[in-house]
Amino acid sequence: MNLQASHIPVITLLTDFGLEDEYVGVMKGVILSINPRVDLIDITHNITRHDIRQAALTVDVSFRYFPKGSPKGSIHVIVVDPGVGGNRKVLCLQQEGHFFVAPDNGVLTMVVQDGRAEKICSITNKKYFLKPVSDTFHGRDIFAPAAAHLSKGIDMLCLGQEIPLSDITRLDVPAPFVSATNELVGAVILIDHFGNLVTNISEATFERFKDGARSREVVIRLGRSKIQGVSKSYDSVKIGSAVAVFGSRNLLEISLNQGDARTYFKARIGQAVRVKL
Amino acid sequence: MNLQASHIPVITLLTDFGLEDEYVGVMKGVILSINPRVDLIDITHNITRHDIRQAALTVDVSFRYFPKGSPKGSIHVIVVDPGVGGNRKVLCLQQEGHFFVAPDNGVLTMVVQDGRAEKICSITNKKYFLKPVSDTFHGRDIFAPAAAHLSKGIDMLCLGQEIPLSDITRLDVPAPFVSATNELVGAVILIDHFGNLVTNISEATFERFKDGARSREVVIRLGRSKIQGVSKSYDSVKIGSAVAVFGSRNLLEISLNQGDARTYFKARIGQAVRVKL
Amino acid sequence: MNLQASHIPVITLLTDFGLEDEYVGVMKGVILSINPRVDLIDITHNITRHDIRQAALTVDVSFRYFPKGSPKGSIHVIVVDPGVGGNRKVLCLQQEGHFFVAPDNGVLTMVVQDGRAEKICSITNKKYFLKPVSDTFHGRDIFAPAAAHLSKGIDMLCLGQEIPLSDITRLDVPAPFVSATNELVGAVILIDHFGNLVTNISEATFERFKDGARSREVVIRLGRSKIQGVSKSYDSVKIGSAVAVFGSRNLLEISLNQGDARTYFKARIGQAVRVKL
Repeated sequence: MNLQASHIPVITLLTDFGLEDEYVGVMKGVILSINPRVDLIDITHNITRHDIRQAALTVDVSFRYFPKGSPKGSIHVIVVDPGVGGNRKVLCLQQEGHFFVAPDNGVLTMVVQDGRAEKICSITNKKYFLKPVSDTFHGRDIFAPAAAHLSKGIDMLCLGQEIPLSDITRLDVPAPFVSATNELVGAVILIDHFGNLVTNISEATFERFKDGARSREVVIRLGRSKIQGVSKSYDSVKIGSAVAVFGSRNLLEISLNQGDARTYFKARIGQAVRVKL
Repeated sequence: MNLQASHIPVITLLTDFGLEDEYVGVMKGVILSINPRVDLIDITHNITRHDIRQAALTVDVSFRYFPKGSPKGSIHVIVVDPGVGGNRKVLCLQQEGHFFVAPDNGVLTMVVQDGRAEKICSITNKKYFLKPVSDTFHGRDIFAPAAAHLSKGIDMLCLGQEIPLSDITRLDVPAPFVSATNELVGAVILIDHFGNLVTNISEATFERFKDGARSREVVIRLGRSKIQGVSKSYDSVKIGSAVAVFGSRNLLEISLNQGDARTYFKARIGQAVRVKL
Repeated sequence: MNLQASHIPVITLLTDFGLEDEYVGVMKGVILSINPRVDLIDITHNITRHDIRQAALTVDVSFRYFPKGSPKGSIHVIVVDPGVGGNRKVLCLQQEGHFFVAPDNGVLTMVVQDGRAEKICSITNKKYFLKPVSDTFHGRDIFAPAAAHLSKGIDMLCLGQEIPLSDITRLDVPAPFVSATNELVGAVILIDHFGNLVTNISEATFERFKDGARSREVVIRLGRSKIQGVSKSYDSVKIGSAVAVFGSRNLLEISLNQGDARTYFKARIGQAVRVKL
């Protein structure tokens, strides 16, 4: 029974469609019309409209938690696609036991940045499109049917022709650096539902920077505010106090215990975060 | 295996319940308690409270993307039901290989307007209700169990007695018309998450009106604003510019490429949209 | 087929994670990686951040609508967990053919208040954790894997050691009382998406209080406003008028027919509601 179970493929959906319209439901209807034996999981549909960068981060921190497999694996459909109907490609990527169906606009930047991509193709085979193909909703007419057919086990190269990895569009992603004054300088890259400020400073980068010094001896600066040390968890400090932790993405976060750091610090995406010994 | 797969019925849910309370989850619990072998798909739960017209449009543009079948087919449950507990009927409609379970308040107006309804009944058989039946949540106590039993294959006439199609409540739906000054006059009927203004002018109506003229020669007017021509896709124009396209519902839409036409045009539902050659 | 069907376990999720981030999707990925044969149902993810009281009420009014069973039954995962990473326990509770996985912070107060809890354990067995265990997201690393393993049929005591029911944290829940002036005094405990004001006065308490008097003879007071009698349903009064009904939770609600009682009465959680004969 276990074996049979493991053959139910998972298709995840990540879009900027919101939850007011029928768009997400319709994509699921198209998928189930092609393959009724899939598990459909929403990652989020509340990516800020047209925010490719935010989508790229979100897919990268989520896909590894889904079942991987060979030849199947989970199929991740990303529809943050301001260029729909234009001449951007639609990609299918195979990597680490997962498939990705996404527009060629940079949303796969973080996924492929470690060089683990195995195969990539441009989805062009109209045989697998839903007809007629609209020029405003490729999620329904191209992405959803491609994912559904993949979940039924067709070879990804049936969907179109292979292209070199170097051909795909990538975002310019700022990395943390060490400044002339010997500070580790990162940036706020995500602000979550709780108002936690997620930075691009990974635990590995932080450890390399502090080189054996104690975590509670560093000072973290955001604008004019200072936080002493990196703590274990939110409740290492009093309720309402600021705290720096390594969050669930293994990235440095600035938080308020049971509060909203976004409001408290008037923080915004892109704001610098400085770590000093 | 394909055969087996196609026997998993789909139940879709469309409500104005929002996503804060337990209402949607509880309906799903009731359904799974009766039939654990269904796929439950949310169309949306963010219909504006009590907005029967918006719900009617949304069900009509979504149901055809779901698996249809005979005798089963998908089951579409619509709970936008301001008259709950009063004397409005609860309907079950069979049409085009789909079933609909909905209050008799007009939410099925667009679905039945082309005269394709096959059978309709008033759900009255208390045997299939969840007891005790509340007077404020028929979605849980009547609609959900009815859909679950339908998905298990009972004949819809077990749920209640057949009624003539002419008996059901219909909304007054304004249609586009040609004015004395030879303009095609439609209206904004939906505004989506992206701020796209969806009109009631279908591609067929538009083609008949312009009678062979080129799409780029028409002028579209919304208030004092003018848009030249109907374009292929959003990115046919510069970012931030207004554009008219036929969207994914085959209806004329006024959009802003990567922007929000609702805000830009200060648009509202019901506003006139005029097309001139 | 029915038998087979009833063996698909249901896992429900109730959190304060919101729907912007990947958190909910990631929990589902973890569960499906351990047991692909589960139905995952969202109760809500829009509990007010860190509002344990609201979560406790919501789980109590929803769980009984899900399939129960022996030895399996539905598994209800509750992640409203401001103390994550601190020293609060993680609980697994068995009751009435259901399982609950929740932090020991009071969210199970209403579930256990009638003394129907059968067994309770503190989840401590690291064998069933996702590693490495973060200090900010136990929903992913402890709750989700525990629920998935339970759904595969492991004995709940494999997850940790049994603890006495008297050990668990409980909220102080105000109950309605009869005042010196012989009024039944309750409070608004929930305000739903429609603006309905849900009180803590159950139908049984109300019946006992009025002791045979007619429902339409009571007067209900909220601030300076008065409502005459308890009606059958919202549409027992004119559109826009105030009405008191027993809602779908068997609790007295103050509503506006097709309107928003929260706005109309400027109501808030905790506000007193008085019933007088």
